Amino acid sequence: MTTRRPRLNDGVRTDAMSWTEYVSRLRADPVVILPVGAHEQHGPHLPMGTDALFAEHMAEALAERLGGLVLPTLAYGYKSQARSGGGQTFPGTLSLDGATLIAMTRDLIRELSRHGVSKLLVLDGHYENQWFLTEGIEVAARELGPAAPSIVRLEYWDFCPQSVLDAVFEHGFPGFDLEHAALIETSMMLYLHPELVDTGAIPRDGPADFPHFDTYPQTGTGVPPSGVLAPAAGASAAKGQLIVEGTLSALHEAMAAHFGSVAAPAPATPASSGGG
Amino acid sequence: MTTRRPRLNDGVRTDAMSWTEYVSRLRADPVVILPVGAHEQHGPHLPMGTDALFAEHMAEALAERLGGLVLPTLAYGYKSQARSGGGQTFPGTLSLDGATLIAMTRDLIRELSRHGVSKLLVLDGHYENQWFLTEGIEVAARELGPAAPSIVRLEYWDFCPQSVLDAVFEHGFPGFDLEHAALIETSMMLYLHPELVDTGAIPRDGPADFPHFDTYPQTGTGVPPSGVLAPAAGASAAKGQLIVEGTLSALHEAMAAHFGSVAAPAPATPASSGGG
Amino acid sequence: MTTRRPRLNDGVRTDAMSWTEYVSRLRADPVVILPVGAHEQHGPHLPMGTDALFAEHMAEALAERLGGLVLPTLAYGYKSQARSGGGQTFPGTLSLDGATLIAMTRDLIRELSRHGVSKLLVLDGHYENQWFLTEGIEVAARELGPAAPSIVRLEYWDFCPQSVLDAVFEHGFPGFDLEHAALIETSMMLYLHPELVDTGAIPRDGPADFPHFDTYPQTGTGVPPSGVLAPAAGASAAKGQLIVEGTLSALHEAMAAHFGSVAAPAPATPASSGGG
Amino acid sequence: MTTRRPRLNDGVRTDAMSWTEYVSRLRADPVVILPVGAHEQHGPHLPMGTDALFAEHMAEALAERLGGLVLPTLAYGYKSQARSGGGQTFPGTLSLDGATLIAMTRDLIRELSRHGVSKLLVLDGHYENQWFLTEGIEVAARELGPAAPSIVRLEYWDFCPQSVLDAVFEHGFPGFDLEHAALIETSMMLYLHPELVDTGAIPRDGPADFPHFDTYPQTGTGVPPSGVLAPAAGASAAKGQLIVEGTLSALHEAMAAHFGSVAAPAPATPASSGGG
Amino acid sequence: MTTRRPRLNDGVRTDAMSWTEYVSRLRADPVVILPVGAHEQHGPHLPMGTDALFAEHMAEALAERLGGLVLPTLAYGYKSQARSGGGQTFPGTLSLDGATLIAMTRDLIRELSRHGVSKLLVLDGHYENQWFLTEGIEVAARELGPAAPSIVRLEYWDFCPQSVLDAVFEHGFPGFDLEHAALIETSMMLYLHPELVDTGAIPRDGPADFPHFDTYPQTGTGVPPSGVLAPAAGASAAKGQLIVEGTLSALHEAMAAHFGSVAAPAPATPASSGGG
Amino acid sequence: MTTRRPRLNDGVRTDAMSWTEYVSRLRADPVVILPVGAHEQHGPHLPMGTDALFAEHMAEALAERLGGLVLPTLAYGYKSQARSGGGQTFPGTLSLDGATLIAMTRDLIRELSRHGVSKLLVLDGHYENQWFLTEGIEVAARELGPAAPSIVRLEYWDFCPQSVLDAVFEHGFPGFDLEHAALIETSMMLYLHPELVDTGAIPRDGPADFPHFDTYPQTGTGVPPSGVLAPAAGASAAKGQLIVEGTLSALHEAMAAHFGSVAAPAPATPASSGGG
Repeated sequence: MTTRRPRLNDGVRTDAMSWTEYVSRLRADPVVILPVGAHEQHGPHLPMGTDALFAEHMAEALAERLGGLVLPTLAYGYKSQARSGGGQTFPGTLSLDGATLIAMTRDLIRELSRHGVSKLLVLDGHYENQWFLTEGIEVAARELGPAAPSIVRLEYWDFCPQSVLDAVFEHGFPGFDLEHAALIETSMMLYLHPELVDTGAIPRDGPADFPHFDTYPQTGTGVPPSGVLAPAAGASAAKGQLIVEGTLSALHEAMAAHFGSVAAPAPATPASSGGG
Repeated sequence: MTTRRPRLNDGVRTDAMSWTEYVSRLRADPVVILPVGAHEQHGPHLPMGTDALFAEHMAEALAERLGGLVLPTLAYGYKSQARSGGGQTFPGTLSLDGATLIAMTRDLIRELSRHGVSKLLVLDGHYENQWFLTEGIEVAARELGPAAPSIVRLEYWDFCPQSVLDAVFEHGFPGFDLEHAALIETSMMLYLHPELVDTGAIPRDGPADFPHFDTYPQTGTGVPPSGVLAPAAGASAAKGQLIVEGTLSALHEAMAAHFGSVAAPAPATPASSGGG
Repeated sequence: MTTRRPRLNDGVRTDAMSWTEYVSRLRADPVVILPVGAHEQHGPHLPMGTDALFAEHMAEALAERLGGLVLPTLAYGYKSQARSGGGQTFPGTLSLDGATLIAMTRDLIRELSRHGVSKLLVLDGHYENQWFLTEGIEVAARELGPAAPSIVRLEYWDFCPQSVLDAVFEHGFPGFDLEHAALIETSMMLYLHPELVDTGAIPRDGPADFPHFDTYPQTGTGVPPSGVLAPAAGASAAKGQLIVEGTLSALHEAMAAHFGSVAAPAPATPASSGGG
Repeated sequence: MTTRRPRLNDGVRTDAMSWTEYVSRLRADPVVILPVGAHEQHGPHLPMGTDALFAEHMAEALAERLGGLVLPTLAYGYKSQARSGGGQTFPGTLSLDGATLIAMTRDLIRELSRHGVSKLLVLDGHYENQWFLTEGIEVAARELGPAAPSIVRLEYWDFCPQSVLDAVFEHGFPGFDLEHAALIETSMMLYLHPELVDTGAIPRDGPADFPHFDTYPQTGTGVPPSGVLAPAAGASAAKGQLIVEGTLSALHEAMAAHFGSVAAPAPATPASSGGG
Repeated sequence: MTTRRPRLNDGVRTDAMSWTEYVSRLRADPVVILPVGAHEQHGPHLPMGTDALFAEHMAEALAERLGGLVLPTLAYGYKSQARSGGGQTFPGTLSLDGATLIAMTRDLIRELSRHGVSKLLVLDGHYENQWFLTEGIEVAARELGPAAPSIVRLEYWDFCPQSVLDAVFEHGFPGFDLEHAALIETSMMLYLHPELVDTGAIPRDGPADFPHFDTYPQTGTGVPPSGVLAPAAGASAAKGQLIVEGTLSALHEAMAAHFGSVAAPAPATPASSGGG
Repeated sequence: MTTRRPRLNDGVRTDAMSWTEYVSRLRADPVVILPVGAHEQHGPHLPMGTDALFAEHMAEALAERLGGLVLPTLAYGYKSQARSGGGQTFPGTLSLDGATLIAMTRDLIRELSRHGVSKLLVLDGHYENQWFLTEGIEVAARELGPAAPSIVRLEYWDFCPQSVLDAVFEHGFPGFDLEHAALIETSMMLYLHPELVDTGAIPRDGPADFPHFDTYPQTGTGVPPSGVLAPAAGASAAKGQLIVEGTLSALHEAMAAHFGSVAAPAPATPASSGGG
């Protein structure tokens, strides 16, 4: 759900590139980024594509700094859980089985390896995806052996600097656990896409009070009816800017350092250059 | 890869909608559309996201006419075949295993059924997807039984009126077989997104001359080096307009007639309305 | 469902061969043919094994001309679709999941590679099988890497010469789309196995008039009650002879040319020669 | 690999029946039989389709006595094991993964249930198939619930009367363990299809002497080079007649008694009667 | 790896119970507990079965307090990750694919539902298992529908009281992230099974310093050579007692409250009572 | 469900070993043993973990004699069948799908290969497991290629000497078919774990009288209500000692001879020695 107007070959998105341009770009051994999101309720004030949109934004902004490329975002993710995303009882939350997400991830890595990609960043914007992305990567790496790309998987919010969190949360940062459609995400959206926030609909639900365990079949018990797990009151574009830009700087620094030290893998099936 | 700037709840895209708006829209029993594309070489002059972009455009324009909703596009599709898309030997073509596409389709239908969606259109923009979308639908329908939505699967180009094809192809329409990155797709893109066409890069390759069989492992033999299977010369935005608008009209007419006569299915697992 | 009486080692069928004879035949690097059919309604006048029988006949006749071998026919195929085979609502139609047909195909190729087979022809007689055979081949080829056989997949009717179709269809050939249990198949069966046709039961249903889309769950709407999609009136053994022999000639020519130019693959797991 | 010449609707084979005849036959609630074989080395004197041919013969002869129907034989089976079939080191042995055979079995039962079949006999002619057929049946029965047919799975040789074995084996019957391509199977083939036996090629290998365990990866160690696990000397058509007819009588008696007492299951998805 | 000597029917373990006793116990609608562990390196001083042993201990002690039952522990878990368990580069770490752990979990729940179990606790002792257990539970719950048991999944350490952590960690509890084979686990083992600790082998490695991302293929980079992620110095049986008993008390309280309020589900397939 | 009290690194169990000790032990190229059991009804007098306990005992005693290692027992097995274990109609019988057991076996072999294990014994204590263990081994061996360990799969009772069976069964040994929870297993348990036998509960059911076929869906018809398939009367610890020790001696002899002649495989992925 990008809001930028792409031009052919003029940017970081591979889906707005010709294959000949892609081949040309690969010669520089760029970091290729796969953003992964979800289609999940984010309260009455944020869009269901929030996780995908944030992952995509982080990926594009990072790729611009790193000279990287960005693949089309995986727009659907693993099943929402009550304690982290409100869970599967909300209409609109549209989730995949774990096996499906594992297979998607594996298939794409296999293809990128065929292309000769040697540096891959799986940039996750939906907490529940983490372990199925991990397994997809593990399975692909086992299958590809020494020809596997060097792969990083991360959740972007882990790079938000403590100083930013201290500044944003006046009464101390309580941790990311309940930050679903709450202060952080609402602020980020107000900064990045204010037209996608209905500020009048921000609920006043207090923070959810979950036990230390999960229950199944999911019933939504304990989840605030709005789907928002912690207060979003006080969200602002200014706070969003702090969060987004602080996170991006830290992410850039870490990835530049990491991938700068990665050597290209052994060539696997050499990618041919077209038909004929 | 939309190029429209969405506003929350202001349009047909579910990823730009809150879950509460989605629940509200579902009361009218709308047609929900899943566009399916691919990430596949389309010659040196068109972007790799071409199939996804066209499927998405058709879905959005159709949804506007039908009062429907559009889900996020599946941006990756089944493996490109030499005779229809140039095949898997091109770098940039990024394809899924059949089982993965089957699973994606099944998972999404299962979730939509939970939401109470009763009319689903799987709108395919990549020829090779057809049978795996079909199997995903068959498997979901079997699992859901009487609670399955009423589902249509189609390839959009089958709705292009013969009169349009006659007008566009001066020397007679040779059939869709080789229309990969050729006259039709180039014209459509010139009409919809001229900034995504590099008209200077349109190759002069003649039409590919394929035998009546497929060979494996894929080697690219017989595929023009550019990846374009038939001449794109003569492509124009005017022709693209004829094709796009003619197809949309026919598609609208057929879907309005079909879904207008569909009754809602037996309620399955009633979708609850949030947490709590 | 062959009607020929085999003798041990005296012909092209591997199931009527000893393993020692098979080893001996493999020394000539023959084309090995896997016929694939279906168990599907073919109207009240043709047997449900029609597709399997035709694929098997084509395979045996072709093998005799090419010095090839024929494996046991896959007698069950992918799910019948309303617009091409009448669909899954008919009792007697006995179909497989896509994943099952993919797995069958992959398993057999894996074994043939172990035997040292280097030339494989998957000869399809059931339209709906095509893409699952393709995926089975793709998956096997990926797994086997350079040791994969050279594989061709085709649908036999694509080789029927235009001149034959012109001769058989007095009012012009309308295309293969509705040729299910219709003029072509009835004529072929009258030529090959007249005892398997109940000419008195040929229905007078006019051609089916399908829309440009598929609907699910399958209900049989629009399918003629007989299961025959186009008129079979006018079918004759003479027309069948034209079709069968014309198709075989073209098929022979194409396969002789193609496989004549194929070199043996790199040896994979060398097949041992028995126990001990 | 039948050697009988079928006529439409004139016999027990469903692949030589029209769907309308099949519907008509189902009204009598017949036992439907699925023969399952293999494509496996059977020494230098017997064809690789031996197991399939025997299963098919037993099924057809039994169906004639029971008024039953016979489905197309599954011609490929589970992997040959050294101690029971010589193992996977022989070229020509063409085996399936366990998961594939499970899926085949499940898919067919699911379809038969849709047709309204209430009595199914899975008649196995290849020892190694047993447990994967069992799992396919178990999985289908779980999925179908109360609408599952009443299913029997058996290996035909378990019905060979002890009196026959005593008569055939002068020095006492040593058990079925090594009876692969040996006295029993060679005699049966001499009785049923003498043209498929090369009596001059019967090897003089003594019985194999296997330990009480299996070893992997399979190497063929301990397997006689001919693939024959016990002497076939003394095989005769007369002995074959005793075995085949004695087995059939016992099989008939058991199945008539068992299925005679089975009531039809609850109707599941009622099979419609064609299109329209 | 229990160290208690069971007597038939005298305790909580179902594997030391007859089926008749099990049926008798089920009448009280007990909480059934499935402990899940791993076989994973835990430094040079702790056994590889540590996670399984702790999960099993917690399960047994909890079952005694709740009047519950304990199933055999799953002794193998999901792949170790560098940042939480040292990763897959250590010999001895013996892990499952995600799909396998999902299937194990689903299969067992399906069977327990057949038995009539209505309260299930999946008690996890290996961090990396969490999401695959979750998916196994989700898949089973979907399949079973209203007959699914009421299921809880938890990681036992989440119940360790803050007061205990404050007492155990003199300089403040740094969080569970690096507590692999470190102070907590070593203390617990010294309390529960001192004979399974080699106190002389406790390494002096400082805490690992991991970045905020995971890298693949796993190489062990950044993991201390011992496999211990944080200092275990200062571990003692007394601290272990505080941790184990504090955790158990909190766990007991939470589960008694939760399951005390759970009603039995709708009966699914009623479990019969034996053969005959 | 061991009853021995392990000490760290003092014995054969890998779950009571540190990874450093495991690495040290592997230098001697030991036989690594995977015991496989079940959780299955064994009448009113024996525990449901009987098969697992016997497999584990045999594995540990054998490992001590061979200098081998024992992995944690697989405590759940394939579905019980009426004729061999009473079947799936008993509450308490807790079984896996075939695919799950195949996957478990494959995963563990894959990991052991990574560790450098070259000799693996899969020691089965539950009859129904055999073919799914076999397939798991076959699949792993195919995937690993020349780096696969040398693997043996056996059922321990096949090693019980005829002389022991003659001594134990006064009226002649009727074969293992009905020996479920009967004389052999009850005697073995009286010898190994008398506290796990309720001698007062041994039923007086006569031997079951099964036909030569299996029926599905399983209903328990023909299975004695106790779940015991043949009389256990006359069971004694003395007979158990004869059986257990006789079996172990034969097993030891066979495995020592077999594995003594096995050379280490080609090194695959060399196992690293920890992190860092």
